[in-house]
Amino acid sequence: MSNQPATVPSTPAEDAGGRAPLVGIVMGSDSDWPVMREAARALDELGVAYEADVVSAHRMPTEMIAYGEGAAGRGLRVIVAGAGGAAHLPGMLAAVTPLPVVGVPVPLQYLDGMDSLLSIVQMPAGVPVATVSIGGARNAGLLAARIVGAGEGAEAAALRERMVAFQASLRDQAHAKGA
Amino acid sequence: MSNQPATVPSTPAEDAGGRAPLVGIVMGSDSDWPVMREAARALDELGVAYEADVVSAHRMPTEMIAYGEGAAGRGLRVIVAGAGGAAHLPGMLAAVTPLPVVGVPVPLQYLDGMDSLLSIVQMPAGVPVATVSIGGARNAGLLAARIVGAGEGAEAAALRERMVAFQASLRDQAHAKGA
Amino acid sequence: MSNQPATVPSTPAEDAGGRAPLVGIVMGSDSDWPVMREAARALDELGVAYEADVVSAHRMPTEMIAYGEGAAGRGLRVIVAGAGGAAHLPGMLAAVTPLPVVGVPVPLQYLDGMDSLLSIVQMPAGVPVATVSIGGARNAGLLAARIVGAGEGAEAAALRERMVAFQASLRDQAHAKGA
Amino acid sequence: MSNQPATVPSTPAEDAGGRAPLVGIVMGSDSDWPVMREAARALDELGVAYEADVVSAHRMPTEMIAYGEGAAGRGLRVIVAGAGGAAHLPGMLAAVTPLPVVGVPVPLQYLDGMDSLLSIVQMPAGVPVATVSIGGARNAGLLAARIVGAGEGAEAAALRERMVAFQASLRDQAHAKGA
Amino acid sequence: MSNQPATVPSTPAEDAGGRAPLVGIVMGSDSDWPVMREAARALDELGVAYEADVVSAHRMPTEMIAYGEGAAGRGLRVIVAGAGGAAHLPGMLAAVTPLPVVGVPVPLQYLDGMDSLLSIVQMPAGVPVATVSIGGARNAGLLAARIVGAGEGAEAAALRERMVAFQASLRDQAHAKGA
Amino acid sequence: MSNQPATVPSTPAEDAGGRAPLVGIVMGSDSDWPVMREAARALDELGVAYEADVVSAHRMPTEMIAYGEGAAGRGLRVIVAGAGGAAHLPGMLAAVTPLPVVGVPVPLQYLDGMDSLLSIVQMPAGVPVATVSIGGARNAGLLAARIVGAGEGAEAAALRERMVAFQASLRDQAHAKGA
Amino acid sequence: MSNQPATVPSTPAEDAGGRAPLVGIVMGSDSDWPVMREAARALDELGVAYEADVVSAHRMPTEMIAYGEGAAGRGLRVIVAGAGGAAHLPGMLAAVTPLPVVGVPVPLQYLDGMDSLLSIVQMPAGVPVATVSIGGARNAGLLAARIVGAGEGAEAAALRERMVAFQASLRDQAHAKGA
Amino acid sequence: MSNQPATVPSTPAEDAGGRAPLVGIVMGSDSDWPVMREAARALDELGVAYEADVVSAHRMPTEMIAYGEGAAGRGLRVIVAGAGGAAHLPGMLAAVTPLPVVGVPVPLQYLDGMDSLLSIVQMPAGVPVATVSIGGARNAGLLAARIVGAGEGAEAAALRERMVAFQASLRDQAHAKGA
Repeated sequence: MSNQPATVPSTPAEDAGGRAPLVGIVMGSDSDWPVMREAARALDELGVAYEADVVSAHRMPTEMIAYGEGAAGRGLRVIVAGAGGAAHLPGMLAAVTPLPVVGVPVPLQYLDGMDSLLSIVQMPAGVPVATVSIGGARNAGLLAARIVGAGEGAEAAALRERMVAFQASLRDQAHAKGA
Repeated sequence: MSNQPATVPSTPAEDAGGRAPLVGIVMGSDSDWPVMREAARALDELGVAYEADVVSAHRMPTEMIAYGEGAAGRGLRVIVAGAGGAAHLPGMLAAVTPLPVVGVPVPLQYLDGMDSLLSIVQMPAGVPVATVSIGGARNAGLLAARIVGAGEGAEAAALRERMVAFQASLRDQAHAKGA
Repeated sequence: MSNQPATVPSTPAEDAGGRAPLVGIVMGSDSDWPVMREAARALDELGVAYEADVVSAHRMPTEMIAYGEGAAGRGLRVIVAGAGGAAHLPGMLAAVTPLPVVGVPVPLQYLDGMDSLLSIVQMPAGVPVATVSIGGARNAGLLAARIVGAGEGAEAAALRERMVAFQASLRDQAHAKGA
Repeated sequence: MSNQPATVPSTPAEDAGGRAPLVGIVMGSDSDWPVMREAARALDELGVAYEADVVSAHRMPTEMIAYGEGAAGRGLRVIVAGAGGAAHLPGMLAAVTPLPVVGVPVPLQYLDGMDSLLSIVQMPAGVPVATVSIGGARNAGLLAARIVGAGEGAEAAALRERMVAFQASLRDQAHAKGA
Repeated sequence: MSNQPATVPSTPAEDAGGRAPLVGIVMGSDSDWPVMREAARALDELGVAYEADVVSAHRMPTEMIAYGEGAAGRGLRVIVAGAGGAAHLPGMLAAVTPLPVVGVPVPLQYLDGMDSLLSIVQMPAGVPVATVSIGGARNAGLLAARIVGAGEGAEAAALRERMVAFQASLRDQAHAKGA
Repeated sequence: MSNQPATVPSTPAEDAGGRAPLVGIVMGSDSDWPVMREAARALDELGVAYEADVVSAHRMPTEMIAYGEGAAGRGLRVIVAGAGGAAHLPGMLAAVTPLPVVGVPVPLQYLDGMDSLLSIVQMPAGVPVATVSIGGARNAGLLAARIVGAGEGAEAAALRERMVAFQASLRDQAHAKGA
Repeated sequence: MSNQPATVPSTPAEDAGGRAPLVGIVMGSDSDWPVMREAARALDELGVAYEADVVSAHRMPTEMIAYGEGAAGRGLRVIVAGAGGAAHLPGMLAAVTPLPVVGVPVPLQYLDGMDSLLSIVQMPAGVPVATVSIGGARNAGLLAARIVGAGEGAEAAALRERMVAFQASLRDQAHAKGA
Repeated sequence: MSNQPATVPSTPAEDAGGRAPLVGIVMGSDSDWPVMREAARALDELGVAYEADVVSAHRMPTEMIAYGEGAAGRGLRVIVAGAGGAAHLPGMLAAVTPLPVVGVPVPLQYLDGMDSLLSIVQMPAGVPVATVSIGGARNAGLLAARIVGAGEGAEAAALRERMVAFQASLRDQAHAKGA
């Protein structure tokens, strides 16, 4: 497993092959990174290239919309967005991109993330956000990998195979922990 | 009390004196109007000019941001925004205007508006929304009137007087209902 | 817009071109169909082929697992699963397929779907479900279309274009409803 | 009171008499053992033989179903299953066995186990799970003992007597703590 | 399927063979019967003899305790107790009997049964109640049947077989509803 | 302010004048004493004699009912009962005494006392419990004092005077803390 | 049982003997009367004299405080106060009277009275409110009767006897409804 | 950024220019100051003069009403009120002043401030409170500044300019934290 840095990495992550990122990981504040880097870790494990950045719906709305509007054209195929409280980032990005957006409810000091969850998942008809569990950034990364792997072509098929192998490893680990 | 139309009025409301609107009432969908027109009614009662429009954070994000960015320059002094579910409109407007934004949690089919309330009130530090009760559009209108009346000058003072009189009328009505 | 039948259609839906389904819509009971057919409607609108079936985690677990294990091999690229209460169908399918699974919390008689939502979204690390809003089957269909459109190749690109056009139509409708 | 080991015991527990287990204690992850071993302790106190194992609904679904399908044939008479979050293990086991299944909502990092509780207790008609309190593994063990003691024959009657004595000891302890 | 009467039956139910009741169905008020008779129906379907009565923890506490203390001696093997709001009946009965007690949270006018659920399921260590879903009386009856079927002897084995057949019928019905 | 002992006092508390207790403070477990002794402290401050004891609804139901049935005859005028989780003690005592019963929801490890609150406050029509805030034992003591002071005669009038003085001291303390 | 009028009675209720009211029933709005008159009915049944009035914390705060400050001096011994939403009436009255105040959470259009309950029951240390169930005005009346009956003297003793008889009648009714 | 003292400052805060306070910051107890001083900090940053004091609705209701009734006459233009639990201070002040009142739900030991939030935001029609997030005193200060800046005249315009600059600084900080 790769080691994720303690702060949002200053340049888009690339694997050894220099591949362009397929997944954009964004968050409203760098204080969300300790949660969100688990998404990056999962993508590292599955060999999916990604970038990571701070994009705040509330503090830099114009840049946020520009990020969303440009994502598909830059070659991204999934956006993973984490936010807490009145968490508007995933839904606003979903409003300005045709790409699937995965939302991670980041728990804040109060309410155990229930506000974050409802603010992300209860989107109006027309603009979906693929919501994962409270603090579930690892699953957000895995979901992004499943989405990239659902496409056509050899790369997607290879990723699908790696996902099957990953699931088998979960089973083996569970076995090893049993009696 | 004025009669509010059954749909969002097609032009900005003006009182007989042709005054420019001081309050902008916006909502994510015209299905919110049966709730939101109570804000308009309250402003009519207090003699505060307003406009009303559909401005959706999720379906017309660019126009929504333009609305917020232009509001202060057009002479608006308060924005009243209603939205339901993952209700992003009040918070996004608050991000792009220096004006006070009053948020009305509109209840949808499920959860009794608790999702709308949390999505509006739990804003991050830096970007406040003045949230009223679930479905509380009348109070949103009254709050906007209090805000307009808090300013300097003769008009504000006169409005403040009308607010005092309005509060006295509440007391008189309550008395009349008692034994 | 196509008309969806009042019961789960008895054969996999195909469009005029006879294309094989890319999305599998499943639900725990045919009583979920009035909610879930909105997913089918959305896929019809976007021109994505799908199938629909009743697959109950609790009443036919063996068939449910077989459905999930065979889905990728049969050519499906996304599964949309709706369930209510202790809603186990989306998560169990996600455990046996490498495909992305979209979960729809179906509201039952009590609790307004909050039990359904938590049972679907709070999946453990390793097995993600892309959860949409309570009763949000239309968004589940749209999310499935975004996922299919995120892949490589001409068909995905064309679908992405249709999604962009669909989003523009949302904006136009919202405009038409405003003042 | 017996001392429970710090990890899931590697072989089925047996009492001195070498009796076959009547209760199967299973959990989704060995991280649930610190909660679930209280069920084992209670069964030790009441003299009911049991086995304990990790059986994950999400990471080893095929083995999980095999466990449930084989339980009655192997002589088990009750299954006690603990799980957290989107807790599917108790309900899935109940779907594949005619035995009573006792579900223990294990609390995770957020939501205080409310998600676990609703995911376990809100089962659809046809497939019951006997749910105990959040983190209530001790009561799950006691409930399993009551169930075993509810049957016909001398062993059940003897266990019922031990349960009566156990309840008397609760009363005596409460008395001793009073003034 | 048997037809349940509209009010709590005035004498203990017996099947054609005149068997003594094995399950006692009790509730705090006859207004709970429209919910609770589903437990009776399920036991009819599985061929398990039962009795039904109003036993209120709050309005006739002495009789309630007498009912619980005498239940095992009279030959009952399971108690099914339904109650709403501050629902104390299941837990109080569990305190005075060594038999397994199944609790049914009956939903009242407000709170959708969440108060009933927590009042029943959150029992302190030492006194378990086997809680089913809100309004889940049918599952309470099925759980009681599983418990009776978990015992030793030919009758229990025969009941276990009927439960297996019942589960198969659930599967067949689900199949018939699918495509 | 008197110092309360660290465990439930072993004999009924009496003031220097040897007056018989007017308030009975009971709790389900001595682990509730650190919360409940605040009720005793408040009664000490107001000069109201009380007794304190462990009386468990679930572990010693017969004694619990005897306590309630005998309370009025022994001269008690109010019962203060604390309990947590599925908190049945206050409601069961209210069922067997004509005295007012004050219920204190004791918070347990999970759910922040919400289960305790609903289990105590949501009593059925006919059997009221005077519920105070979660963990609010001090207010329970003050409420018991108000109740004793509401009666006729010189002692009640004197207690009412002490309550007025106590309220004035609250005001003075608040003033002292202000600017 | 007496018949309560459809609106708040215009003069204090008195029984045939012309006794001065001992209980004051107040509510924030006459729209609360359909809920609150059940308190009056209960007091009629128990033969306790009362008055009823509209006293709004928010619309006539000065009169509300005057009502509370004068209550004890006028001979009232208990105040029963109902309010909904941000329900401030019971707590504000408790702040200005040494009498026990019983609070009734009146459910409004949304949230099923949970906001009313928390606004009434979660009072700070120093100022207790005796809270009953959501919509539980009948229990509020019965609790007021218990409080009046807890005092010294012949009248209180007689009321206590009537309460015992009332509780016996509850038991008899429950018996009659049983089998 | 100014340093706020550890206790409520003993005299109204003034800036160097000796301006009279425009915002009154009040709270129910000095234990709320660690939360509420963030409102003072925000006003310091924006250059808005304020005063701070302890004004308890429950412990000094007469003074509380006097504070509210006199606020507008003393030149205040906004009141910021923080309170926890059954939080009545913001709503009671709003009942006796025509000024806009900003409410801060202060979280207490249990329930994470959900009781505080509902007690403040769910005000009845006629008496609005501008509610901010749980513990969101900083946003309360910023909202008060927006309100003061919404008025007419040069000072308001200058404050509006400072608010725009403040929002730009938020954006710059967010950028600096991104990649």
